[in-house]
Amino acid sequence: MATTLQFITLAEFLKLPETKPASEFINGRISQKPMPQCKHSRLQLKVCNSINQVAETQKIALAFPELRCTFRGRSIVPDVSVFAWKRIPFDAEGEVENSFQIYPDWTIEILSPDQSTIKVISNILHCLKYGTKIGWLIDPSERLILVFLPGQQPLEITGEDKLPTLEYLPLNLTVTQVFAWLKLG
Amino acid sequence: MATTLQFITLAEFLKLPETKPASEFINGRISQKPMPQCKHSRLQLKVCNSINQVAETQKIALAFPELRCTFRGRSIVPDVSVFAWKRIPFDAEGEVENSFQIYPDWTIEILSPDQSTIKVISNILHCLKYGTKIGWLIDPSERLILVFLPGQQPLEITGEDKLPTLEYLPLNLTVTQVFAWLKLG
Repeated sequence: MATTLQFITLAEFLKLPETKPASEFINGRISQKPMPQCKHSRLQLKVCNSINQVAETQKIALAFPELRCTFRGRSIVPDVSVFAWKRIPFDAEGEVENSFQIYPDWTIEILSPDQSTIKVISNILHCLKYGTKIGWLIDPSERLILVFLPGQQPLEITGEDKLPTLEYLPLNLTVTQVFAWLKLG
Repeated sequence: MATTLQFITLAEFLKLPETKPASEFINGRISQKPMPQCKHSRLQLKVCNSINQVAETQKIALAFPELRCTFRGRSIVPDVSVFAWKRIPFDAEGEVENSFQIYPDWTIEILSPDQSTIKVISNILHCLKYGTKIGWLIDPSERLILVFLPGQQPLEITGEDKLPTLEYLPLNLTVTQVFAWLKLG
């Protein structure tokens, strides 16, 4: 994860062109996310789809991959961010806006090899501090998911343990099911 | 961090010769700690010394580097483990025992490059689950310290923030002070 040491303001950062992978603005610094690899991409897609499968038709919530969320001094791009339907900002045409100025209700990060786990956890804690109800940190290499809830000790979820989600989502997933998505065919 | 996939029991693991770096037994698996590099060694020594400076003479507590702690199904070797004086097991000669069968009151881990942060956090959560009062996760590359307290959301401590410690220890440290130890001379 490349980090430039040059200090700039959030407003200056937001004027810069988007990069690929996305760059985040954290504590006055720009930090580029790692290039997603195959496991990461697969999990990101499957997590989004499984959430939207139970949330989109009924207009309960919506999961977005790589959506920029700018709030409370940071501009972050969670791997998956989930918003309660009524909080999604639509523009005049009824289309969803390109970038959100609000915290996600649920932030999901999938660790890549060589990514700074602490930086990712720091973003999850930033979200929880300002309103996010739940954070997942998925570690494909250790086959475990850390679940962050506001004001609580993180939960280490493995195997057949049921994963906590947003309480109003009818989503039942175990860690085993999540990592089974890595087995193709 | 090398991990063998062979499943063995804790009793079998404890009969194996010690390795260098130390191996840990976590969820039925053996996992060897990374070879400590210069920043890691320096921080480990200075953290131990600064704790013992306020804790040893008055027999309040004692900090140990690389002490094996075996409890509740795991055998772990925190970078620094701190025990309240009255909990330290002494042998018949009044000497401290070689390996402890109890949880540390305070566990401190210092991240190495390429180390699995999640595995380290998992060990800290294991400690907190079974009695440990506080855990520190020091990240030299991000210059921040995550502080884990039982039943609470982890705290991200940076800069001039005062670091929480065991409440009965008269130790005042900021994150800046801790990382200043990396500047030699």
